[in-house]
Amino acid sequence: MEITKKNFSEELPSILEAVQNASFFAMDCEFTGLASDRLIFPFDTPEEVYLKTIDASPQYIVVQFGLCAFRVEPAGEGERDVPPRVTYKCYNFYCYPKGRTHVFSCQGESMRFLADNGFDFNKLFREGLSYATEADEQRFRAEMKERQAVRAAALKAAAEEDANEGDPKPIESDISLIPVPEENQQQIDDTEARIGEFLKSDEKEVIVGNGNAFQRKLIYQMIEQRYLGKVSTTTVTLEDNQKAIKVERKRSPEEEQALEQQRIVKENEELEAKVGLSLVLQELSKARKLIVGHNMLLDLLYILRQFFKPLPVDYKEFKKLTKEIFPLLLDTKYLCTNAEIKVSVNSSVLAHVYDAVSKPPFCIPEVHPELPAHEYSVENDKQHEAGYDAYLTGLCFLGLVSRFKVDLHDPTKDPILKKYLNRIFILRLADINYINLCGNEPTHSRDHVFYVTFPETWRTNDVVAKFKPFGPVHLNWMDSTSAFVTLHNRVASNTVLKTIGYHTGFTIYSFAQFTQMKLQRTGTKRGRNDSDGATATGSEAAGGIVGKSNGQKEEEKKQKIESHGTKRTADEKQDGDPVGGSWKTVKRTRTTFNDNDNW
Amino acid sequence: MEITKKNFSEELPSILEAVQNASFFAMDCEFTGLASDRLIFPFDTPEEVYLKTIDASPQYIVVQFGLCAFRVEPAGEGERDVPPRVTYKCYNFYCYPKGRTHVFSCQGESMRFLADNGFDFNKLFREGLSYATEADEQRFRAEMKERQAVRAAALKAAAEEDANEGDPKPIESDISLIPVPEENQQQIDDTEARIGEFLKSDEKEVIVGNGNAFQRKLIYQMIEQRYLGKVSTTTVTLEDNQKAIKVERKRSPEEEQALEQQRIVKENEELEAKVGLSLVLQELSKARKLIVGHNMLLDLLYILRQFFKPLPVDYKEFKKLTKEIFPLLLDTKYLCTNAEIKVSVNSSVLAHVYDAVSKPPFCIPEVHPELPAHEYSVENDKQHEAGYDAYLTGLCFLGLVSRFKVDLHDPTKDPILKKYLNRIFILRLADINYINLCGNEPTHSRDHVFYVTFPETWRTNDVVAKFKPFGPVHLNWMDSTSAFVTLHNRVASNTVLKTIGYHTGFTIYSFAQFTQMKLQRTGTKRGRNDSDGATATGSEAAGGIVGKSNGQKEEEKKQKIESHGTKRTADEKQDGDPVGGSWKTVKRTRTTFNDNDNW
Repeated sequence: MEITKKNFSEELPSILEAVQNASFFAMDCEFTGLASDRLIFPFDTPEEVYLKTIDASPQYIVVQFGLCAFRVEPAGEGERDVPPRVTYKCYNFYCYPKGRTHVFSCQGESMRFLADNGFDFNKLFREGLSYATEADEQRFRAEMKERQAVRAAALKAAAEEDANEGDPKPIESDISLIPVPEENQQQIDDTEARIGEFLKSDEKEVIVGNGNAFQRKLIYQMIEQRYLGKVSTTTVTLEDNQKAIKVERKRSPEEEQALEQQRIVKENEELEAKVGLSLVLQELSKARKLIVGHNMLLDLLYILRQFFKPLPVDYKEFKKLTKEIFPLLLDTKYLCTNAEIKVSVNSSVLAHVYDAVSKPPFCIPEVHPELPAHEYSVENDKQHEAGYDAYLTGLCFLGLVSRFKVDLHDPTKDPILKKYLNRIFILRLADINYINLCGNEPTHSRDHVFYVTFPETWRTNDVVAKFKPFGPVHLNWMDSTSAFVTLHNRVASNTVLKTIGYHTGFTIYSFAQFTQMKLQRTGTKRGRNDSDGATATGSEAAGGIVGKSNGQKEEEKKQKIESHGTKRTADEKQDGDPVGGSWKTVKRTRTTFNDNDNW
Repeated sequence: MEITKKNFSEELPSILEAVQNASFFAMDCEFTGLASDRLIFPFDTPEEVYLKTIDASPQYIVVQFGLCAFRVEPAGEGERDVPPRVTYKCYNFYCYPKGRTHVFSCQGESMRFLADNGFDFNKLFREGLSYATEADEQRFRAEMKERQAVRAAALKAAAEEDANEGDPKPIESDISLIPVPEENQQQIDDTEARIGEFLKSDEKEVIVGNGNAFQRKLIYQMIEQRYLGKVSTTTVTLEDNQKAIKVERKRSPEEEQALEQQRIVKENEELEAKVGLSLVLQELSKARKLIVGHNMLLDLLYILRQFFKPLPVDYKEFKKLTKEIFPLLLDTKYLCTNAEIKVSVNSSVLAHVYDAVSKPPFCIPEVHPELPAHEYSVENDKQHEAGYDAYLTGLCFLGLVSRFKVDLHDPTKDPILKKYLNRIFILRLADINYINLCGNEPTHSRDHVFYVTFPETWRTNDVVAKFKPFGPVHLNWMDSTSAFVTLHNRVASNTVLKTIGYHTGFTIYSFAQFTQMKLQRTGTKRGRNDSDGATATGSEAAGGIVGKSNGQKEEEKKQKIESHGTKRTADEKQDGDPVGGSWKTVKRTRTTFNDNDNW
């Protein structure tokens, strides 16, 4: 069901109810741009990826949010072995910032991609739902209350004044009076007469002063002098965008009060519309139920930032915030790394996963739309519409977990699935390819990984030939003159640097040396973004420290931060590049195979 | 006539011809965002406005460019007193950045405004013309030539190798061979057989290897071993976005050459499409004819930046660049400040100007579309479509100049019009409301202008009352607690600071004091943006220095820059706001009347 400004307030109660009654959710977003992954290295730590990702997606926004609320009917008497009945309500929300000053970024290609896939941007810009962060909403509420308090005080004062004296007097000082130029006198006289007529008539209001700002100024002046206490005025905008003055009879205190009540009701409605889609996300957070996404890292980051709170620069804080807002997340792309699943699922692209789980050994249970308006069908291909993709993600989840015979009444209790909960898949990483929201990610030895640079003319075979004495290797290309080389035979690792042959233009570094260089180059930037030096996480980024106790790690971390802290100022001055540190030459990562992006 | 990717290459020759044959042009743009004018003060210098404007519009782009080419037919024999026949060709270009990495900014409200006025964003994103700056275009051309040179060398080498030996040998080293896992062996064998069949058949090509990246890697390896020298392979993307391998028979050197020629033709066409709309703007620049715009400052700045060159941070350089690219500009909004015109034109909003010049004492000559496809009609209201607005601007120009009986065969020679040429209107300035592209703008005494701050409860009358002893004043509100006050009676100026009454919460500064404060607050920022300290223009911004010789001014300027230079580092650390210096509290400028935005 499509939700825009046109049907939001009408549908909101039933949406909130659907969220409350759901067993689990699937979700998906469409964005105005994707964080660049150009600067992500295959052996980066998840923390580094997090920091690089938030740096590389400054002002992109979610423009479509798809939410599919699945409900698993409780098992009836004697139905223990019967598959449960699953129903769903699927929503496709358009969302777009309200407010004159809101600026966001777009990636040319992202917008074109969405438009090519049938995304209706005209609808988005005209009918997209507003949204607000928690801080925005608080501010809106405070401002509204303040406005209402000011008006209440003014009303009270006016009522008292009304009770105390008769006609208010026009301002005596004539120093501020603008002399009426001759050519304007006729218009002023006419307007004065027109208001006089109006006051004697049954008319409810009269519009005067459709001229320029100066002419209106003169008319306001005339009204203050002649009709103060008799009429109320408001500036209005006419259909042709010209401004004019609406003149009404001075209202009685009781009329003013009634009008004020109407205004308060309207302001509350406007506030609801302004917070808009955030109301749905807030309810989703409150539900504290399982939310499934496919390759959901960006969805998660953008949703937190746009509807809740700014993303912390501290990785641990980010995990804490995520758990507070969404305590149960499952990334089906990460679930696809399960060995039993991988046998039958060739590619973890969403549509390919759906194709794979539609066949044995998987089995997608039948799902029923609660109302026809919520129905999607896989025949009716709407790929890259957030609502459809959320629905498809839900089906993939149901298909994938059928492999483990998960009890759908309580999937998060399943012992296999538990291992995949709250782990968010990361693209392009060689081994530790997820963020663990509920703990630290493992660290692996990098002693068998080497960073090599070589002439631009070299191809895979040239690099591989250099490593011939050490057995088979795996190559991760960085750009046309550098790569990571991983030995299959770890035992050979400690002989490499000593015995590898010399070649002009070829250099080799241990992974530890590489991280040291990286730390020096990117340290600058971290320092710049962190307001609190102690949370600077460049040291975790120097990830090569492995196989040591946590205590040792913490100690090393501190030392690194200190030395890094002293470098900061000097580097900052030299380095003008706000994004890439000195890694300017790195082109799109190419990998030969085992690329976890596209298996 | 609407121009998108669909008809660009077909229409380009006739567009260039229309540009070459035109007598003058009218133009208009639609943008993704408007530079914020929040920080523009009514007594800013034009230079300050320029600098603030480029700072406040970082990544907005032109998404629609309207160009109306008017042609005034030469007067025939004895037609001297007959009004000339005027024809036009009007184009409405959609333009949109090409390329995966291009990021631009949008203002929420701007996009909504355009969508509400019927702008088709779906068309924009899908069919918008590409564009390029001069530097981009040079880079594209260099890259293309380099690619072609590399391919030419490779073709030559292959042809020689072909001539020298028979079958190329497969790589001998088996160190780099990936062992084929058992489960993949069947697929590899099947593919090998399939290619063998293909080579015996009449088929032109065969697609193999639609599996994952690893499977394709194995297939490439098999092909290198078994079919090297017999087939050519290319990676292709199938309809479902899966990748596969296209296998063709090995081409002969002659076939390769013919294919290469086709490729070069295609690359040239692609380059033309990539430079896209910039080709039209380059032609427009080359024409060196009159270009009319209405309120054209942002149009000019965005056009220069998007289709030509980055905007200089030096104001004089900006004027120089503009004159090089567009030597004859006329801003009809500035023309409307002419006293004779102002009598009959109440509002300088484009549509209102059109209404005004459609009546005596003005007379819009009849204009004829050269082809029906170019026709616009004022009845068919398409306001805020760039092409229509360009057409309307042209009609307004024709109407306005009819007041002076300008000879349309050579309007830029008209003595009255000359005074308005190359002067670009600036909104929100109190007096020097234009940029003079061909010289310095005048400086006015500010001795009768005062900057005042006061309690939030004060209204216009409260401020005006303070100035009662000095005669009538004009107020420019800055925010709810500050304003500029201008005395009508300049003679009283020098008594104000000495004799004005004390009031708690009321402070008053001369304009010179105000600029001094402003310089201190905004100095930081200028320093940050200028790479060359000597061009820092904060001192010109301190504009209050008037009635002195240029030599004196230069001297003072230097001193200011120096003292400002020493302050810079200290300020920079304290001041985190990248745009506003310390002027954070300034809200939208309100003016009581004489607001040149809306008269």
